[in-house]
Order: sequence, then structure tokens, then C-alpha cells
Amino acid sequence: MFNAKAYSTVSPTSPLAPTVIARRDPGEADVQIEILFCGICHSDLHMARNEWSSVMATVYPCVPGHEIVGRVTKVGSAVTKFKAGDLAGVGCLVDSDGTCPACKEGLEQFCPNQVLTYGFPDKHLGGVTYGGYSDSVVVDQRFVLSIPFNLDLAATAPLLCAGITTYSPMRHWGVTKGKKVGIVGLGGLGHMGVKFAHAMGAHTVVFTTSPNKVEDAKRLGADEVVISKNADEMQKHAGTFDFILDCVSADHDINAYINLLTRDGNMVLVGAPEKPLSLSSFGLIFGRRSVSGSPIGGLAETQEMLDFCGKHNITSDVEVIAIQQINEAYERLLNADVKYRFSIDMASLKAE
Amino acid sequence: MFNAKAYSTVSPTSPLAPTVIARRDPGEADVQIEILFCGICHSDLHMARNEWSSVMATVYPCVPGHEIVGRVTKVGSAVTKFKAGDLAGVGCLVDSDGTCPACKEGLEQFCPNQVLTYGFPDKHLGGVTYGGYSDSVVVDQRFVLSIPFNLDLAATAPLLCAGITTYSPMRHWGVTKGKKVGIVGLGGLGHMGVKFAHAMGAHTVVFTTSPNKVEDAKRLGADEVVISKNADEMQKHAGTFDFILDCVSADHDINAYINLLTRDGNMVLVGAPEKPLSLSSFGLIFGRRSVSGSPIGGLAETQEMLDFCGKHNITSDVEVIAIQQINEAYERLLNADVKYRFSIDMASLKAE
Repeated sequence: MFNAKAYSTVSPTSPLAPTVIARRDPGEADVQIEILFCGICHSDLHMARNEWSSVMATVYPCVPGHEIVGRVTKVGSAVTKFKAGDLAGVGCLVDSDGTCPACKEGLEQFCPNQVLTYGFPDKHLGGVTYGGYSDSVVVDQRFVLSIPFNLDLAATAPLLCAGITTYSPMRHWGVTKGKKVGIVGLGGLGHMGVKFAHAMGAHTVVFTTSPNKVEDAKRLGADEVVISKNADEMQKHAGTFDFILDCVSADHDINAYINLLTRDGNMVLVGAPEKPLSLSSFGLIFGRRSVSGSPIGGLAETQEMLDFCGKHNITSDVEVIAIQQINEAYERLLNADVKYRFSIDMASLKAE
Repeated sequence: MFNAKAYSTVSPTSPLAPTVIARRDPGEADVQIEILFCGICHSDLHMARNEWSSVMATVYPCVPGHEIVGRVTKVGSAVTKFKAGDLAGVGCLVDSDGTCPACKEGLEQFCPNQVLTYGFPDKHLGGVTYGGYSDSVVVDQRFVLSIPFNLDLAATAPLLCAGITTYSPMRHWGVTKGKKVGIVGLGGLGHMGVKFAHAMGAHTVVFTTSPNKVEDAKRLGADEVVISKNADEMQKHAGTFDFILDCVSADHDINAYINLLTRDGNMVLVGAPEKPLSLSSFGLIFGRRSVSGSPIGGLAETQEMLDFCGKHNITSDVEVIAIQQINEAYERLLNADVKYRFSIDMASLKAE
């Protein structure tokens, strides 16, 4: 074991504060990584404050962070994929059983024995896993991703969650050239959705409640922007969308979007609103439409996504902060006051 | 034009009562049918009482009925599919444009210019179309189905709506041998769902709130019956269903069923609850599951369904009533007091 600097919270109402945690010495299949940047995901805030207690109660102390990019400092004897000095990424998963049907299909995100990057039982050290708000992490090579050399590292970190969460459903439901794709909500997830839909060649339409986001949506790759509060504007698109990615985590009217789908069209929720949504059966029935959900992606698909980003030069739009600004960043996140993702420069942690 | 006896209602609160309506003389592509039996669908009641006004306002007088079985009495000069004396069926549709993408795929249920069997503008006589609570109907041969010779006619009528509404989604989402299929609600739709799922070779599980329906569910073809109020019993099936057909038209908790789906499993709503349902995003996201809707089926698939029923000797379980009992039957329908579908013996209309 060795000591690592980190930021943790000890209760739903406590601020995040500096701490020291134990990391395991790398085993033969492990990769030890010096964390350079860690993105701030909205689920970090939900977990830090135990807001998802109904499905996943938070264990304290909690060290959030699952959008990790860093440099390999040490590898175990059986590690073949990485060597010291390589760039490496870690997303939401750090382990899975490797033997279940989901794992065998490369869909570790559905493994019943998956271990999330933070807050899940740690079979090596006991307690729970600690995430990326830290100067280092040790992870089995199966769960370590290669980072394309050409991408800005601070802006790459959010790809590990926001990126794969939006990329995976688009691939799964066949977003390609010739399709009309809607992105609902232009935040951390949504702005990645726009970039991917555009890069995949789809006619990309952004739905936003904010007229002042129109120009930015176009800059990110939107072909059209619809102000969702404008019923007439919405009606013009009725029955025309092959696929809609709903990135909104607040309560909102999904039926208005379902009615914009073509026959057999699909709307996919990735924003995980805390409260149940109101669903009208008619919009689904009359067009044989579907509402689905999708979580992150498997490891192979996450690597595919990173390679896609390398090829298309896609990263997240980030505001880089020092770890000391984390509590302020959480408040700004609640106010949607970030374009579009915070990325923590972990060099700031050395000052603690 | 000729006169036909019928039962109609003149307002949302009026009882159905005898009347005389005009039917067109058959044109060259038309089939004139003496109606022998007409099933009572829950949507008849919704439409008679204008309960779906938000999506489809009722025009009065309203002659409901879209589960029609009868005998051909006359055909137009261009009719090749039928001759006088043949058995014939008519379901929810009596016309469509024939030229849109949906029609070209044989999916007339999605034609934007479809004409429903009752309550839709009648381009031949003006006013609206009148349904099957009548002694006769005249329909374009494209929308007339052949009835297998071996089926009981009273029990065949409900196949034209309840049958195709449950058959179509099972075919669309690939219900076959080796799949585990749930049927929620054992009423007019649900009992057909059980018969089809069983005949398609699926492991068929019925969910019901009524312990006194267990034996009947098994008689209809269920391999297992789950009392949905029993949380422990529900939990045993978590994550195991490939497909769930939700036939409930009242408000109910769909999230409890979504959690029973496998990864990538699909739950399809066919019961059209009036009020929006409460949908938790988590159940969808964690299993990449979907909730969909499905309406009836196209003409080709409806014929396929009838042929399937002929082959497997499947009909609806019906209680045959006289047309004079229609208002009482509606009240009993509201109390779910029918096993499992009313079928009106139209001979009773001769007495009016």
C-alpha cells in the first residue's frame, strides 16, 4: 500500500476536503497511474450528496471522480497493454467478473458484479473504491484505456464518462449519415452528443430552453437549434426524428419529444433525472416508438470512442480548475454555469 | 345508398340506442358484408364517451365497433378476393392512402391518411364512418380479411382488434421459443397475449393483481402466474424477461415491470392508459431497456394473424350478448366483469 492525496467528503452535507487515502501496490495485472486531470460529472455531485440513495446509497468517506486521464508510472509483471510513461484513462468501471454473458460480449457496463470507480466494495483493500479526485490510482489493465496522442488531456478526461455515455447509444441505435438526430439539453453530456452526432454524419438538431445557447450549439456542430419552449417550432419537427438523445437530468416533458420521433423512432435517456418522468402512452403507441435508457459503455467501445475522438479531433469543452475550487464548481454545476465540463488539474493537489 | 340498422350514441353521456344509418352501395372495389358478430373493445367505450378527446375527439352520432365478422352479400365488379357467401372480417381500418411509405411497407396502421372504421371522415357519404354495431357494412376489399373456416365466428370477432394488437408487437419484437415473455393484465387484450405467446413457444408468465385469475391464466396457456402485488414474487423474476406486453389500461406502476426485463429487454404498452404513467429513468438506463407502444397491425399482418389462429385453433374467450344488452355490457366492462371479451350476436338487431 501507499498513500495518495485526495479530496473526499464525509457526509451528504459536508464540503469536499483534502485527505490522504491508501492505494494498493500494483499487482501483476495492475497499472499505476499518476492522475493528471479528472473531469467533474454530475453524478459525482449526486453521489457526494447521497442523492441517489434509492438506487445506490453512498458510503462515506467518498472520493468521487470517474473521468480520469493520467500517465502510467508503474505496471505489474503481467501487464502487456501499458508501460511506464504511457498516457492512460480510467472511466466509471475498475472491475467486473469477466465471466458473465455481458462481460463475454464486452458489455462490462451490464456485469452484475461490476465495480464502479468509486463507492463500490474494494476487494483489495476493503472499504470502498476511491475515485479520481486524487493524485494516483491503481487499476487492472482490463479497465485502463489508451489515450490518443493528439488530444488535449484536460479536455479528454470527460470523454471517459460524458463521452462514452453519449457515444454508446448513438452507435447502438445506429446513428449514421442520413439520420435526423436530436440532442436535448446542451450541458456536459449534450455538448458531447452534438459533437458525436455531427461527426457521425447525422443531421443534428439541438433542443434547448436557452436562446442564448443557439450560436454555441451551431459552433459545436448543430445543423439546427430548436427552442423547446416554442410549441410551434417543436410542431414543425413532428414525426421526423430517427433518434433523440435526452441529456437532461432535471424534470422535463419527454412526451413533447416522443411526438417528434418517426415511426419506430427511439428516444434514449442518459441524463438520469432523480424523479420519475410523466409518460403518455399515446405518443408511443401511435408511432410504435420507444423510450430507452443507456449507461456508459463497455471497455472495448470506450476505446473505440477514444480512437474515434482521436481521428476526428473531438474533445470536451472544458473549464480547467484547481482541486481547491471543487466545492464552488459543484455549486456552479447546479446552476448549469459551466461550458461544458469542469476538468480538475490535479497538479493543484500537490499544494495540499 | 341503403339503410342499415345500427346502435349509436349521440353524446358522451347518452346510452347507445337503436338507429338507422346510411351505407353506400358497393363501388367496384367494395365488399358488402352482413355483420354476424361484433366484438366490444374498450376503445368503443372510450370513444362513445369521448374519453380520448385530447387525442381524438368523438363526432356524434357515434356507431362504435371494429371487431367485425360477417358474410359477404355483394361485391363490386373489380373485387377479386371475395365473393358472395364468403366469411369476411373488418378490423380498425377501412381505408388508407396506399401511397405513403407506411402503406408501401404494408403498415397501414401508420398511414397519416388512414380512415378508422368508425368516427373518421367518410369520403363516400360525408359525415363520419360508422362501425360494426350494425347489421351491415361496406368496405374496400383491401381492408377486408379472410376468416379461417374452422374458427367459431363469435369468438373470432375480437381477433380483429384484440388479436392483432397483441400479435403484432410479439412478432415485431421477436417473441419465439426460448424467450421469456410476460403478459401484464388478464383482460380482453391480455388473454389473447397469453394465447399467442404460448402458441409462439415462449415461456409465458402472466402478471395479475387477482389471485382468483391464476387457474384461468394457466388454462389459457400461462406457464407461470405472478401476483403483481407480491413484491417478493416479483423480485424473483428481476432481470429475466425478454419481452413484456403491458395490456393494462388503468394507471399502474410500469417501473416494477421494467425492472423485470433483461438487458436490452422491451416492454410494450398496448393498453393505452388515459393518464400519463410515472417512468423512472434508472430502470431503463441500468439495463439499456426500452418501453414502447404498438397499435393494431397492418392488413397483411392481420391476415397472417388470422391464419395463425386458424392453424393453432386460437380464438377469443367470449361472452355472447344481444345488442340490447350493450349498455349493461359497457358497465360490466368498466368493472372488468367479462371473461374475456363481449361479442355481440348481430342477429339480435333484427328484432329492432
